[in-house]
Amino acid sequence: MEKREMIYEGKAKQIYSTSANDQVIVHFKDDATAFDGQKKDQITGKGKINNKISNFFFKLLEDNGIKTHLIKELSANEVLVKKVGIIPVEVVMRNIVAGSLSKRLGIKEGEVLDKPVLEYYYKDDDLGDPLINNSHIEVLKLATETDLEEINKMTFKINKILKEFLRERVIDLVDFKLEFGYLDDGEIILADEISPDTCRFWDSNTREKLDKDRFRRDLGDVEEAYQEMLKRITGRGEL
Amino acid sequence: MEKREMIYEGKAKQIYSTSANDQVIVHFKDDATAFDGQKKDQITGKGKINNKISNFFFKLLEDNGIKTHLIKELSANEVLVKKVGIIPVEVVMRNIVAGSLSKRLGIKEGEVLDKPVLEYYYKDDDLGDPLINNSHIEVLKLATETDLEEINKMTFKINKILKEFLRERVIDLVDFKLEFGYLDDGEIILADEISPDTCRFWDSNTREKLDKDRFRRDLGDVEEAYQEMLKRITGRGEL
Repeated sequence: MEKREMIYEGKAKQIYSTSANDQVIVHFKDDATAFDGQKKDQITGKGKINNKISNFFFKLLEDNGIKTHLIKELSANEVLVKKVGIIPVEVVMRNIVAGSLSKRLGIKEGEVLDKPVLEYYYKDDDLGDPLINNSHIEVLKLATETDLEEINKMTFKINKILKEFLRERVIDLVDFKLEFGYLDDGEIILADEISPDTCRFWDSNTREKLDKDRFRRDLGDVEEAYQEMLKRITGRGEL
Repeated sequence: MEKREMIYEGKAKQIYSTSANDQVIVHFKDDATAFDGQKKDQITGKGKINNKISNFFFKLLEDNGIKTHLIKELSANEVLVKKVGIIPVEVVMRNIVAGSLSKRLGIKEGEVLDKPVLEYYYKDDDLGDPLINNSHIEVLKLATETDLEEINKMTFKINKILKEFLRERVIDLVDFKLEFGYLDDGEIILADEISPDTCRFWDSNTREKLDKDRFRRDLGDVEEAYQEMLKRITGRGEL
């Protein structure tokens, strides 16, 4: 399997084609962006840490019956994954009120939700990734109703697996964003990444933020927080 | 039945208590507002026209099996209605793309939808009436899942009744906003109003706007458009 040309570059990742038609290589970058790309910076080591954390979570999910795009970690920054037709919907699940949910509903950040909240956002930079509902997904023909139900079921299951795993590591899983994709045979699998870039992680005791909010809100020690998450998850120290 | 003190004043209506505990009087004002109250004006005759149009539609819906708050028209500007505990959710149904749906999804205004789009907005001026989904309604405890299903069913039925009625009057029902309320026994009924303030009406041939968009977008002839709608609906001329 040979790495070929870059076929896509996002804010935090690059995708390369390979000699295998159904496999691509994801390269995690150190670039950090927030607020629809208005805030930009580099976080030393972020690419390597997120690659490790995300692959660890995907492996954990695979072991618990969730189909994902993960094939194998290739290097510090790179992972080999199954090529999917990505569904342009960001699926967000929330256990504790934070960020845009707090602003939208006027509820104080930190309030623990009785039941997880599920949200869809339309992955479209020009439109500012707006909140959408089932009706909108149907109009835009982003996914069928049956596929959405499958995605919801997977998301609730993923939440349960991650929440329980993290609880033992003294981390509250506040919320997270998932992306799903279609394989050629129509099967839906988990794609993209699960990392401090795409989740909110709070220390269960101190409620210290160990995620991208440290960057968004200029709280400092961004790299240290990401390292701390890696340590808590894998039980291993610095890369 | 005696009119007593004003118990609520909204942007376009006042509500008065009466000597009957379970009945209130709605007074339709000539005030027009748009963009969360940032744009304000008076439209001569609007209160009287909307009272007539709304009562006509509510009667039409009652005749077709929809429970509404309507009791009887009292005067040019006033209607006697059942008192409800209003559910603070604006239920929007769309048949043709316009306004915020066009902006949210990046679809051109005027595109006819394959199926009606259903949306919920949280009635909260301070938050700017944000779009919300079923999950948010559950968190905010605005309505139970069963009640939401009942509201959805009523909304689809109302759409069908109004769309067919208006089609014969050469009007396209582009979209509309409904509000529902609970009676003391828990029954859900249609409340608020159905008028050019709360619907988009387009002439089916010319696509001329006969609704509040004439005010929002400074198209002129606002009162004339509202009068035209009254004429098309009731078959009667000027008030």
